[in-house]
Amino acid sequence: MSPTEDEITGWFARQRQLSPATILIGIGDDMAQIAVGQGASVLITTDMLLDGTHFDLRTATLQQVGYKSMAASLSDCAAMATIPLAAVAAVALPAGFSEQQLKELHAGIMFAADKYDCPLVGGDITSWRGRGPFAICVSMLSKPGNSPPVRRNGAKVGDAVCVTGSLGGSGRGRHLEFEPRVREALKITACVTLHAMMDLSDGLSSDLNRICNQSGVGALVHAAAVPVSQDAKLAADPLSAALNDGEDFELLFTLSAEQWAKLEQTWDDPVPITRIGAITNTGRMQIRMPDGRINGLEPHGYEHLRRG
Amino acid sequence: MSPTEDEITGWFARQRQLSPATILIGIGDDMAQIAVGQGASVLITTDMLLDGTHFDLRTATLQQVGYKSMAASLSDCAAMATIPLAAVAAVALPAGFSEQQLKELHAGIMFAADKYDCPLVGGDITSWRGRGPFAICVSMLSKPGNSPPVRRNGAKVGDAVCVTGSLGGSGRGRHLEFEPRVREALKITACVTLHAMMDLSDGLSSDLNRICNQSGVGALVHAAAVPVSQDAKLAADPLSAALNDGEDFELLFTLSAEQWAKLEQTWDDPVPITRIGAITNTGRMQIRMPDGRINGLEPHGYEHLRRG
Repeated sequence: MSPTEDEITGWFARQRQLSPATILIGIGDDMAQIAVGQGASVLITTDMLLDGTHFDLRTATLQQVGYKSMAASLSDCAAMATIPLAAVAAVALPAGFSEQQLKELHAGIMFAADKYDCPLVGGDITSWRGRGPFAICVSMLSKPGNSPPVRRNGAKVGDAVCVTGSLGGSGRGRHLEFEPRVREALKITACVTLHAMMDLSDGLSSDLNRICNQSGVGALVHAAAVPVSQDAKLAADPLSAALNDGEDFELLFTLSAEQWAKLEQTWDDPVPITRIGAITNTGRMQIRMPDGRINGLEPHGYEHLRRG
Repeated sequence: MSPTEDEITGWFARQRQLSPATILIGIGDDMAQIAVGQGASVLITTDMLLDGTHFDLRTATLQQVGYKSMAASLSDCAAMATIPLAAVAAVALPAGFSEQQLKELHAGIMFAADKYDCPLVGGDITSWRGRGPFAICVSMLSKPGNSPPVRRNGAKVGDAVCVTGSLGGSGRGRHLEFEPRVREALKITACVTLHAMMDLSDGLSSDLNRICNQSGVGALVHAAAVPVSQDAKLAADPLSAALNDGEDFELLFTLSAEQWAKLEQTWDDPVPITRIGAITNTGRMQIRMPDGRINGLEPHGYEHLRRG
């Protein structure tokens, strides 16, 4: 059985002891944080998006692809409650890709850059010599916001587990036009202290599993509380779609019961926040079904190294 | 006629006025520089390397590819005389790419990371769903070294034009194993003040043309002075190879005649520095051939948007 992306990433992370004086956060979170002197630090993320995997250029426009490539990295900035600073974009162009197509892609990048105040400051344009599909890699810098960057490994037993927005069915089109929750993450951390956070890129079941693993805790999800999107309601199994579909790009976070009470009382944003469960000491993920049964919850989200 | 990469990049650069308070250096140099508060700044570069374009996995090992992907970005850090801080790597994997292959790639990345003190702090692993070749995109952060980052646009009439090492024929193998001139760039800028610098990635004729265009000057290259590599001497036209072959990853820089005199006198490094010509007020590039004739020098290096 071939390893998962998390197993490989974990192996990579164990190969070197990074200097804690300069690498404040290393491999395994949504962004890495690097000290740059004078007490300042910067965070960085990189995302590779591929034609046929993350979008399909037979149906998606290049403007949508440019937007999505920026929005995916902006979502990483949000995942740690940090403030986007600047982005660079590298592209691999298939044969026959035209100047007009590059400008359409650029327009999508700039729409996101302007909307989220994250300028494009550089890039790299390369072309396949032989046959190769379109690929784009955006790398983005951010700086800490209202709090130290919120990591995946701080969830505590008893925490409320919350998500923004609604989940599932992103593949019906939302995955190309989602709103990265940059503003919401900063608004939340201006109000309360979070213990752990990440963005939902591979599906709630897989991403909550990452918070549990990295925090050394379990979780109990209340199925009836999971906000199922309108798109997911069109699926054969809407709950499964909300639990396992990837690319929601909503925020998943945990905080103490007291802090949750405060957040619930003060949150007046059009983007809803829903408490979907609690962090437990069981060491594994479980789900309470609407009929009261408690089942194991397996990480069945998107696996980047899945074959076939 | 389709536009060159420089023309497209210039068009991109003109689409937005970047805030000079935060974006200290924007699109069009080897790296962008971003202010991060407390008087500190960070630089960023991104490089996409493609199987079949920048290497050939039928003959190159994955260790070599991992090394080269880091070394290309390290060379950008050197190009502005900055100090590498950290790198992230995103990969697009073809079907059937194994765990063992990922570890070989990682070994090459880590060899460069360790040698040049630039830790790998994160990344992204993606797989093509359909057919797609191997691609890797390394993005790298650096910080200013002994001087403000040396740009491409500062060359002055009368400057000496210099290069490190020897040029041409990199395709015979050196392009996979070159030494990015990080140490040399910092040593040079500790000794003298440079007016302009970049690294030679697309060939001397094309890269010097960039310095001339961005500085609004011309240049006269002395053919007899160009350091032709042993590899280039095996070519049918060694001078042409030295002028136009890409991926030398040597430094190309300009400085005043007085500063050149100082550098020439004190430079005791095993990596040679050669004065190959001068910056002129002609507004164009020329070359003095060994027989004394002066010809126009056309940018015939590697063009990333060349088709076919």
